[in-house]
Amino acid sequence: MVTRTVDLRSDTVTKPTETMRAAMATADVDDDVLCHDPTALRLETEMARITGKEAALFVPSGTMGNLISVLVHCDIRGSEVVLGNNSHIHIYENGGISTIGGVHPRTVKNNEDGTMDIDLIEAAIRDPRGALVYPITRLICLENTHANSGGKCLSVEYTDQVGELAKKHGLKLHIDGARIFNASVALGIPVHRLLQAADSASICLSKGLGAPVGSVIVGSNSFIAKAKILRKTLGGGMRQVGILCAAAIVAIQENVGKLEGDHKNAKVLAEGLNKIKGIRVDAASVETNIFYFDIEESSKHTAESLSKYLQQRGILVMLEGPSRVRIVLHHQISESDVQYTLSCFQQALTGVPDQNGI
Amino acid sequence: MVTRTVDLRSDTVTKPTETMRAAMATADVDDDVLCHDPTALRLETEMARITGKEAALFVPSGTMGNLISVLVHCDIRGSEVVLGNNSHIHIYENGGISTIGGVHPRTVKNNEDGTMDIDLIEAAIRDPRGALVYPITRLICLENTHANSGGKCLSVEYTDQVGELAKKHGLKLHIDGARIFNASVALGIPVHRLLQAADSASICLSKGLGAPVGSVIVGSNSFIAKAKILRKTLGGGMRQVGILCAAAIVAIQENVGKLEGDHKNAKVLAEGLNKIKGIRVDAASVETNIFYFDIEESSKHTAESLSKYLQQRGILVMLEGPSRVRIVLHHQISESDVQYTLSCFQQALTGVPDQNGI
Amino acid sequence: MVTRTVDLRSDTVTKPTETMRAAMATADVDDDVLCHDPTALRLETEMARITGKEAALFVPSGTMGNLISVLVHCDIRGSEVVLGNNSHIHIYENGGISTIGGVHPRTVKNNEDGTMDIDLIEAAIRDPRGALVYPITRLICLENTHANSGGKCLSVEYTDQVGELAKKHGLKLHIDGARIFNASVALGIPVHRLLQAADSASICLSKGLGAPVGSVIVGSNSFIAKAKILRKTLGGGMRQVGILCAAAIVAIQENVGKLEGDHKNAKVLAEGLNKIKGIRVDAASVETNIFYFDIEESSKHTAESLSKYLQQRGILVMLEGPSRVRIVLHHQISESDVQYTLSCFQQALTGVPDQNGI
Amino acid sequence: MVTRTVDLRSDTVTKPTETMRAAMATADVDDDVLCHDPTALRLETEMARITGKEAALFVPSGTMGNLISVLVHCDIRGSEVVLGNNSHIHIYENGGISTIGGVHPRTVKNNEDGTMDIDLIEAAIRDPRGALVYPITRLICLENTHANSGGKCLSVEYTDQVGELAKKHGLKLHIDGARIFNASVALGIPVHRLLQAADSASICLSKGLGAPVGSVIVGSNSFIAKAKILRKTLGGGMRQVGILCAAAIVAIQENVGKLEGDHKNAKVLAEGLNKIKGIRVDAASVETNIFYFDIEESSKHTAESLSKYLQQRGILVMLEGPSRVRIVLHHQISESDVQYTLSCFQQALTGVPDQNGI
Repeated sequence: MVTRTVDLRSDTVTKPTETMRAAMATADVDDDVLCHDPTALRLETEMARITGKEAALFVPSGTMGNLISVLVHCDIRGSEVVLGNNSHIHIYENGGISTIGGVHPRTVKNNEDGTMDIDLIEAAIRDPRGALVYPITRLICLENTHANSGGKCLSVEYTDQVGELAKKHGLKLHIDGARIFNASVALGIPVHRLLQAADSASICLSKGLGAPVGSVIVGSNSFIAKAKILRKTLGGGMRQVGILCAAAIVAIQENVGKLEGDHKNAKVLAEGLNKIKGIRVDAASVETNIFYFDIEESSKHTAESLSKYLQQRGILVMLEGPSRVRIVLHHQISESDVQYTLSCFQQALTGVPDQNGI
Repeated sequence: MVTRTVDLRSDTVTKPTETMRAAMATADVDDDVLCHDPTALRLETEMARITGKEAALFVPSGTMGNLISVLVHCDIRGSEVVLGNNSHIHIYENGGISTIGGVHPRTVKNNEDGTMDIDLIEAAIRDPRGALVYPITRLICLENTHANSGGKCLSVEYTDQVGELAKKHGLKLHIDGARIFNASVALGIPVHRLLQAADSASICLSKGLGAPVGSVIVGSNSFIAKAKILRKTLGGGMRQVGILCAAAIVAIQENVGKLEGDHKNAKVLAEGLNKIKGIRVDAASVETNIFYFDIEESSKHTAESLSKYLQQRGILVMLEGPSRVRIVLHHQISESDVQYTLSCFQQALTGVPDQNGI
Repeated sequence: MVTRTVDLRSDTVTKPTETMRAAMATADVDDDVLCHDPTALRLETEMARITGKEAALFVPSGTMGNLISVLVHCDIRGSEVVLGNNSHIHIYENGGISTIGGVHPRTVKNNEDGTMDIDLIEAAIRDPRGALVYPITRLICLENTHANSGGKCLSVEYTDQVGELAKKHGLKLHIDGARIFNASVALGIPVHRLLQAADSASICLSKGLGAPVGSVIVGSNSFIAKAKILRKTLGGGMRQVGILCAAAIVAIQENVGKLEGDHKNAKVLAEGLNKIKGIRVDAASVETNIFYFDIEESSKHTAESLSKYLQQRGILVMLEGPSRVRIVLHHQISESDVQYTLSCFQQALTGVPDQNGI
Repeated sequence: MVTRTVDLRSDTVTKPTETMRAAMATADVDDDVLCHDPTALRLETEMARITGKEAALFVPSGTMGNLISVLVHCDIRGSEVVLGNNSHIHIYENGGISTIGGVHPRTVKNNEDGTMDIDLIEAAIRDPRGALVYPITRLICLENTHANSGGKCLSVEYTDQVGELAKKHGLKLHIDGARIFNASVALGIPVHRLLQAADSASICLSKGLGAPVGSVIVGSNSFIAKAKILRKTLGGGMRQVGILCAAAIVAIQENVGKLEGDHKNAKVLAEGLNKIKGIRVDAASVETNIFYFDIEESSKHTAESLSKYLQQRGILVMLEGPSRVRIVLHHQISESDVQYTLSCFQQALTGVPDQNGI
């Protein structure tokens, strides 16, 4: 019998809090397509302030935020974007920048810390003199924190260097900042400083911050003006969207402060798991709220059987391969949930089989 | 001093009702990308039932609903869609089916009642034997009610005929049913019957029905499975989207019954306006909640000056040209609002100038 | 037994002349991708001179010429082109501007003379203030001569008016001049004057002029620079292409002078056919080398049976519908061929059936 | 004073031979769009036979051949292709598969021999169960010989393995066989065997084979039927194209036998250059007609100054970086040219400066 649910699949699974629900129930709204919803305007103004950019735009998802950003910077046919071979945009967004936007991606190897070597980025930028056979490089994309590397943070120094490189070659820099607040908290650096070198960024409100729906993209006034048209084209223009924005405002107010706890919980969980025979996790490298662990071949479990075992105890995890599992912490996972989880893992890997034989 | 607001620009401007707000505040939700939000599931199940289709999918807007539908039916490069030269998809959706989807539109003249002549539709369908120089016709689109013709309804007979034509040529039929509930109420025909010939339809929940955000697309299971992938690609996949779906469920329960009143108010307003010197409106042709009127050249007002005059009295209308104005009724316009509006128009066109000289 | 071949399907069917073959056999050539083939350069220079434009580019076909031209003018995502509903680009080029280029077409009704009403063109241009829901109009396309209207010529006055309209709205004007030399000869106006208002034009060398392969696009230096990149992208960059250009140079030198004869033959043939019972053709409206004729219902022939009858006598025509046939004259159709054709038609429609019963 | 020209930039620079010119001058031709040019048909039939495929299609360039092939295999929106990060399609074809075709590329590291590790290819194939966030992998591309690795040949064994992998995952395999004849000669394996595992291939006739213009794509009848439509859409349908095909037929007959000499010349040149102080080339790894060499930092020359020095002596080479140069042999480079080239290099790098100081 499941006594509780501990959903560690993603930080997108959080339920809206009571404060968010109250804010949604009383939000002042208007038709955000015909004019500007007042609550959307409040959220966008606040996000522009936090990120140090001229303007902001609410969009239904991080995928749309990235898609719009890449397409606005690459609005001319024949454009190429340089991005990480392990970046969320390249791996998990349906290839939309090409299949919907006709933008050609050129990937650079992501290091284990989510960076790409500066000289490799530069080597990937096309020489404009070769335009007869090359696409035109117009954009570099970074991701901070970098999900696939286990939520690693990009430093201000690194980001600034890439920004310099972009400027040197007349390119734009977009940062997929789905979890930029996690990076900010982990590094102790304000969000606007982390994004200073960027021409645009997309920031997810429904991941660590726990809003039910939505992301925000930020950039210059002219960038956002183009983004608004593209949002409409893609079908992301919503009417009384202030309902969702009201919850997002609460998310920013209430939940940024909780991220530090999520990071601490991640560390505790990773360290605890690493002590369990059959599990291998580089706990020292856990910087934020995500980590991956591997199940050793000698273990009695595969990722799949372990996942099934845990599920029966209310613990949900994300499979990333036959022996690889992803864990994501968020504000609705308590310290007690972490301890419960550790004890279930311990039992799974070292205990006697339960009555179902697993 | 404005004593009240009478927003006649569109039926998208309605504010969520108290019942909707309460429903949103208490909605049971989950991550609709990782699994299926229970309230989204309820809404989709209900919409599939109402429309007589196998499955349904909630999307952020009618534009995305149409875009996804056209792109799913035209998923192979080199596809063409036959649609009305005055249809919403062709005129008001940024040309997204081409600029985002690479689908070639072939337009057929819309008659004043929103239909296209069957023989003209047939003539527009490409002979597959000419594929060396022709795109391949894969889809016909209808719009019911037809916005640009003043909310005219397509009859079951007409729709079925187009459905037969589509079948004969191996094509799909999509119905932009943004206001299909208005058509259903005006014709006294259930929605599922009006959509019987269609392979897919998009239905707006935030127009006449008054939900804050969203549309639903309906079709076969395989259509919706493809649509779900494309929704994700476009960035329309939202997390705890049950918040919005809860309001939409209320909209269906509460507001379908109010559409008849909207149609009656439209008729009263159109007839009243037609009696005012300087305004010309074909009141007899008003079938649902939309109509257009023209300002005669001899009038003291242009559309713009009239709009300004009315705005000072809290009445908002949509300009469609130098002497053409669109009026849309909805459930937050009362009979008293209609009378107030008529008196302001009367004063504007026949009264003495006010202190602002207009 | 067929005594000769009279191929009236198109003016693309001509065989290269002895002079052309000699020119191809001795052409000075080089790699036109790595550098600039000298014979291609000669042709392009000559075509720039004839058309009064800064630069020219040889392309493999008229379809590629139009595709490149539309895509260069509409190089930004979200572009729309205004063009005739009966234009070659819209009807016979696979919808490539959308399916390959993502450009949204907005069609205007072509009149019987190939023009579109100026006020209808203007009405089709999108108001840039509506960019939130409209694509951006960037281009108007004309076609001179207009194939589908039976080779009608657009006058200088008309073209200039459309050019003025384009300028007024900040748009570009492209002329599909596949048969612009026919227009020039028929109107007695030099090609450069007919194209004066155009920002670009595509001109076919393998239609009336009789070159084996190719078209040329002309425009400003910056237009052609972009066109060259797009030609490479599409795969139209060819190596020792001077072979083909040598024949094209001969075509310009030898065959422009023959177009007048083609037009005269078209007139004679149309007038002759019109005298035959069962055939209806508006001979008075034949301006250049193309016309369509209809077979009356009372006739003993359909288009298909007539075509088959003629084919047995070496005469090839193009079916355009169950009772409609297209005829195109070219320099390899002699006056004697015309007389032979007339006698075969006469026999087909009024004579006794031959031994095959047709 | 230049005494001769030795063009080592590419094997695309060859001039048509006298036999080719004679063949072009007498070629039997017809309109290859309206029907099938007889000489094109001959060439296509012959290429289908040589490659062991059902059908073949002449196209204006290798770029179009690859573009068509990728787009036909990836004809459904949302497709992904797995290909080498150093492949010609990815690097030198303008990103056309994305910018024109909307196909998303996923690159795998090319080894020094032009292969990609089989397990890396497999890892790059998307799990179809992840279609909600992944594009759909539909195609793998190989390149034989692999240009950027210095003309290395892919073995039958390797190609067959990749073919097995493709089959296992329900994918297609396309081989960019621009220089497949070079591979065939170097390996002593017939072309059809090298392409046996491939669903399609593009083969360049204007590289080592020396035809003035064109490539051929080969595959199943249904593949070629779709390719023909796409060729027309892209503007690659040409009229009396038998002119070019006649030269290509000669190229196959005359020049395949000369490739062995080109390979020998490449080896001699590479070995000779390697003996020159300041130049580093892995002569042992030269397999066909292409190699790269590096200029050592201690040398008196950069790639640019060396290129300029050589150019004054009629020797043309292709710069690939500040100290990297590409050399390509072809049938119009004789053994004597190779010796002349070696002596010029010797002088450039070890001799006294000439009067221009270089």
